[in-house]
Amino acid sequence: MKRRDFLTATGAAVTTAAAGFAPAAIASKRRYRFEMVTSWPRTLKHLFGGAEFFAQRLNQITDGAVELTVHPAGAEVGAMEVYDAVSSGAFEFGHTAPYYYIGRSPAHGFFTAMPFGLTVSEQMAWMVSGNGQRLWDELNAADDLIAFPVGNTGPQTGGWFNKEINEPKDLRGLRMRFPGHGGRVMARAGVNIQQLPGGEVYMAMERGTLDAAEWVGPHDDEILNMHRVAKYYYLPSWAEPSAMLGVYINRSIYSDLPGWIQHAIQAAAAEADRKMLADYMSDNPAALKRLIDHGVEVRTFSQEVLEVFEKGTQEVHTQDMRDRQYARIYEDWAAFRDKVRSWSGISDQLYQAFLYRDR
Amino acid sequence: MKRRDFLTATGAAVTTAAAGFAPAAIASKRRYRFEMVTSWPRTLKHLFGGAEFFAQRLNQITDGAVELTVHPAGAEVGAMEVYDAVSSGAFEFGHTAPYYYIGRSPAHGFFTAMPFGLTVSEQMAWMVSGNGQRLWDELNAADDLIAFPVGNTGPQTGGWFNKEINEPKDLRGLRMRFPGHGGRVMARAGVNIQQLPGGEVYMAMERGTLDAAEWVGPHDDEILNMHRVAKYYYLPSWAEPSAMLGVYINRSIYSDLPGWIQHAIQAAAAEADRKMLADYMSDNPAALKRLIDHGVEVRTFSQEVLEVFEKGTQEVHTQDMRDRQYARIYEDWAAFRDKVRSWSGISDQLYQAFLYRDR
Repeated sequence: MKRRDFLTATGAAVTTAAAGFAPAAIASKRRYRFEMVTSWPRTLKHLFGGAEFFAQRLNQITDGAVELTVHPAGAEVGAMEVYDAVSSGAFEFGHTAPYYYIGRSPAHGFFTAMPFGLTVSEQMAWMVSGNGQRLWDELNAADDLIAFPVGNTGPQTGGWFNKEINEPKDLRGLRMRFPGHGGRVMARAGVNIQQLPGGEVYMAMERGTLDAAEWVGPHDDEILNMHRVAKYYYLPSWAEPSAMLGVYINRSIYSDLPGWIQHAIQAAAAEADRKMLADYMSDNPAALKRLIDHGVEVRTFSQEVLEVFEKGTQEVHTQDMRDRQYARIYEDWAAFRDKVRSWSGISDQLYQAFLYRDR
Repeated sequence: MKRRDFLTATGAAVTTAAAGFAPAAIASKRRYRFEMVTSWPRTLKHLFGGAEFFAQRLNQITDGAVELTVHPAGAEVGAMEVYDAVSSGAFEFGHTAPYYYIGRSPAHGFFTAMPFGLTVSEQMAWMVSGNGQRLWDELNAADDLIAFPVGNTGPQTGGWFNKEINEPKDLRGLRMRFPGHGGRVMARAGVNIQQLPGGEVYMAMERGTLDAAEWVGPHDDEILNMHRVAKYYYLPSWAEPSAMLGVYINRSIYSDLPGWIQHAIQAAAAEADRKMLADYMSDNPAALKRLIDHGVEVRTFSQEVLEVFEKGTQEVHTQDMRDRQYARIYEDWAAFRDKVRSWSGISDQLYQAFLYRDR
């Protein structure tokens, strides 16, 4: 990790206006140059591209006052080290998946995906109009961080398998890449879970050290060439019905920024948030079609298998309730989930049930 | 309508820095004061509030450079006159529902809601990652307008009725408020359609000049006191599976703004867009519960009735295909719809089918 002195970086903000001008005019031209580390290889154009879009928009709407240099995973820090690198102040900004850090507290899972959790609109509503952002702020503040939602993959998939999963016993002994709480649920079903960054999944499948892997969805999985190393592609994603990513900012640095730049960060985050989801929704269908053309067989989990996952989810949850932060956030999250489903389940769901009635 | 000279308004932008400063520093402090007319009474806090949130965010991220004064429906122009008022340059900004203007071209319907059309995520994806924004730009440019999505109500409802709708013949002769193409479809089912702004719907129901009305959904319908004038609340909304609103800007004024302010407008629009949907998703469930507590009976349209609407939608569409702009946009929209459903229908839909399996 390349250690940077963030205080110097901020303090050395470039002032282009000559000395002697009115303070307001000078302040408006002060420039900030920051670095953003990410968990993504450049090839994953919606994830890495989402971070880049955020950086570009922030630069544009601040009329060039904020410049972010965006680094792919491994260039400065490893894919799973983004949280620590920004927390320590070594880098000012980071873009990553909050649930990579459930080892630190299981509560981080609420801010990417929970098994049998919120759909993409529901997650956004909890963050923006419910208490999600406030609870996330409290969780992150302890590590001198603040984060905003930047992007969502939309519904993911149940993963790639080199054999069919017809009943619960077919899961036993599989070696599988599966992040977040979903991986812990799979472990309870007898799966041997391994955590790997996206960039290493293909190699492990090819070498035979993995039998199965969950990554994102058709668009990203095709880029990782998953169809070359596994035949069966399972739906739906019970573990990641949506998956939120976040831009993390060192909180001390963020607090020192002028209010209008803080607002610009939030607005650029919102625009990038919406765009990433749009890109996934737009590109997944054609990618899935190509995967099927390559010989991939799409399968759906049986109700029996999904119910095993549902039971495992409850067990993992019971264990996590011992964590004070998890318990506190769960209470709010679950109340929101139940509330929002009382409307989603009869509005959107009745509409889609009619649309897809012949399937 | 209070006529304003928009060229003067723009030309008179306040410069706070004294003459003789560097141009860049002065330009950055130039201030713009604009007015925004809307189609909403102040009481509809998610619609009018969405316009206000956009104005506030734009002010904040431009460090006060852009100030928007937001007017409720009727204060400056009528609810249905927003498009013309901004097109003419009488007002610089407007917030309204694009489908209020299908009389001008049926193509405006694509930018709010189409019967049996896109869900909220699908609509956003078409606008942001598909060709939606570009096609909307072309449609609006002819009237010297540019518009960006600001808000979506999420799935609406099928409307309020003073009697049960058990079969298609129950629709015949009803006098109903129903906007957009959905209203034209209802007309084909024998309904007598009347167009009224939201603020006038309750009065018409109370006076008995309307038998039924579609407005938005539980949160807004409760504010309009619809439960006091109708007993049956029908789901799902086949006509407005989502309903997008837009901020319209006079294109000549927009074009003259500095690039960073144009970007700030887009980012503020994106943030306001997301927030309005979040607010509706968050507040509809409790509102629906209160409506039921007030004695409202929730009903679902039978498959037979929905299929009548589906057939009517096809007939209205066939008629509209004679409009060149409609036909051109439809081709892109329908291709996107079919593409995105090939993924939504097996990802999100399979997940929700499992969640709601016992209902």
